[in-house]
Amino acid sequence: MILIKFGGSVITDKSVPLSFRKETVHVMGEAIRVLSESEPVIIIHGGGSFGHYYSVQYDMHTAPRHYSLDGFSIVRNSMVRLNNLILDVLSQCELRPYCCPPSVLVYSNDAPYHNNNNIPNIHNTIPERVRELQTIAESGMCPVTYGDAMWHGSGMSYILSGDVIMEMLSSILRPRLAVFTLNVDGLYESMETKKVIPRMDTRELADIAIPNNPQQNDVTGGMVRKVSVATEICNGGIDVFFVNGNKPDRITDILRGRYTGTYFSSG
Amino acid sequence: MILIKFGGSVITDKSVPLSFRKETVHVMGEAIRVLSESEPVIIIHGGGSFGHYYSVQYDMHTAPRHYSLDGFSIVRNSMVRLNNLILDVLSQCELRPYCCPPSVLVYSNDAPYHNNNNIPNIHNTIPERVRELQTIAESGMCPVTYGDAMWHGSGMSYILSGDVIMEMLSSILRPRLAVFTLNVDGLYESMETKKVIPRMDTRELADIAIPNNPQQNDVTGGMVRKVSVATEICNGGIDVFFVNGNKPDRITDILRGRYTGTYFSSG
Repeated sequence: MILIKFGGSVITDKSVPLSFRKETVHVMGEAIRVLSESEPVIIIHGGGSFGHYYSVQYDMHTAPRHYSLDGFSIVRNSMVRLNNLILDVLSQCELRPYCCPPSVLVYSNDAPYHNNNNIPNIHNTIPERVRELQTIAESGMCPVTYGDAMWHGSGMSYILSGDVIMEMLSSILRPRLAVFTLNVDGLYESMETKKVIPRMDTRELADIAIPNNPQQNDVTGGMVRKVSVATEICNGGIDVFFVNGNKPDRITDILRGRYTGTYFSSG
Repeated sequence: MILIKFGGSVITDKSVPLSFRKETVHVMGEAIRVLSESEPVIIIHGGGSFGHYYSVQYDMHTAPRHYSLDGFSIVRNSMVRLNNLILDVLSQCELRPYCCPPSVLVYSNDAPYHNNNNIPNIHNTIPERVRELQTIAESGMCPVTYGDAMWHGSGMSYILSGDVIMEMLSSILRPRLAVFTLNVDGLYESMETKKVIPRMDTRELADIAIPNNPQQNDVTGGMVRKVSVATEICNGGIDVFFVNGNKPDRITDILRGRYTGTYFSSG
């Protein structure tokens, strides 16, 4: 089982609202079809210039609050639109995409019971729904879920990012690999040199991944949260890769034991 | 609380694949915005020339079977596409649509536990997720769900129709009214006269609603299943209306105590 995240900056042009990079998704889809012939794959996509764009416009964040209901509705609708575009392309790639919006996978706070295993506690993941995705992937389809605006209960909402979904799914499904596609070649040593760190282990990650530290933010090229999620997944014993999604050979290369990008080694 | 079904033959042209009736949905949306100012509304839409069209092409039905996985994927994707079109229009009508695919509301057979209350037993409805829709509707948004192709477990799938979702939601939420919009003026006395039956009570319904009886099928103009669902809802003590969705005044008229269509009286 492989989890693959389609980064929002790969599948859309983040500088232009509602701009979908159809060709990029198509070449990633073709690469994933090759993977899926030997191993089940689940895809998680970000919001890019669709959901992410509107969530910024309406000042919505990951903490549950009384955000604008207009914003909540618009973010959610824009994700249905982006998801539709992605499903169409993955269908053309003969991946048999199975659409699974993240609301299927988590309870809101309205639910009378919660699940507080090792998942961020606002995300009341429903393990049987997550495991269902594995069964569906193993049956010859390709489940597709995505970051979204979520109902929290009592008029509140929050943004559930695709990166956090990667963490949720990894902790329950324990995939062999978790792959994050980016719009750059990997994790940079520094923004000045833009030299990609080829490999980090969990001890090195403990030094680097300090979320919300502005200095660290510079070091990682705005990827602090992604590194933080990668660290969590890696600490759980799962190998993580950051690769450039614009170069789909790098996705298939991972399976062949070579890679160009950043490898977060759990071993 | 009012449940409104957008019939597939109202919101699409069933004779032309993937044909969306944007203007019709827009005028229904405007009428529903008027309703929603005084009472929460939940919308359920059918598949028409999107999901229904492909489910016929791939010979998929309501009984769980090993249907084509290609067909399953295509039906599901086509419903995301139709749902996206509807959400956009309802957004323009300022209804603040909240997209809720039906997979959120029911467990598949893969789940370790089932819920067999008074719902058709293949549909393992999750009552807390259905009640969540009511909370969301009462908060000032308009939940939108739809008929879809559903994973059943063990490689099987089935079609969950929007009409059956009306029944599921009615039994749990007990709305004040359940309204089915059609592409005709109501339930016909016969296909020859095309005279609309203005009112039926539960006793009369017991005589007419015999599902899968070809003769009855003629009498009701191909609406046997819809009448069967209306009967179930009505037997539960909820008033049901069949109205022409192309004439949106008839939707708002219901609230004003007058109606043009068929009224299934629970009293």
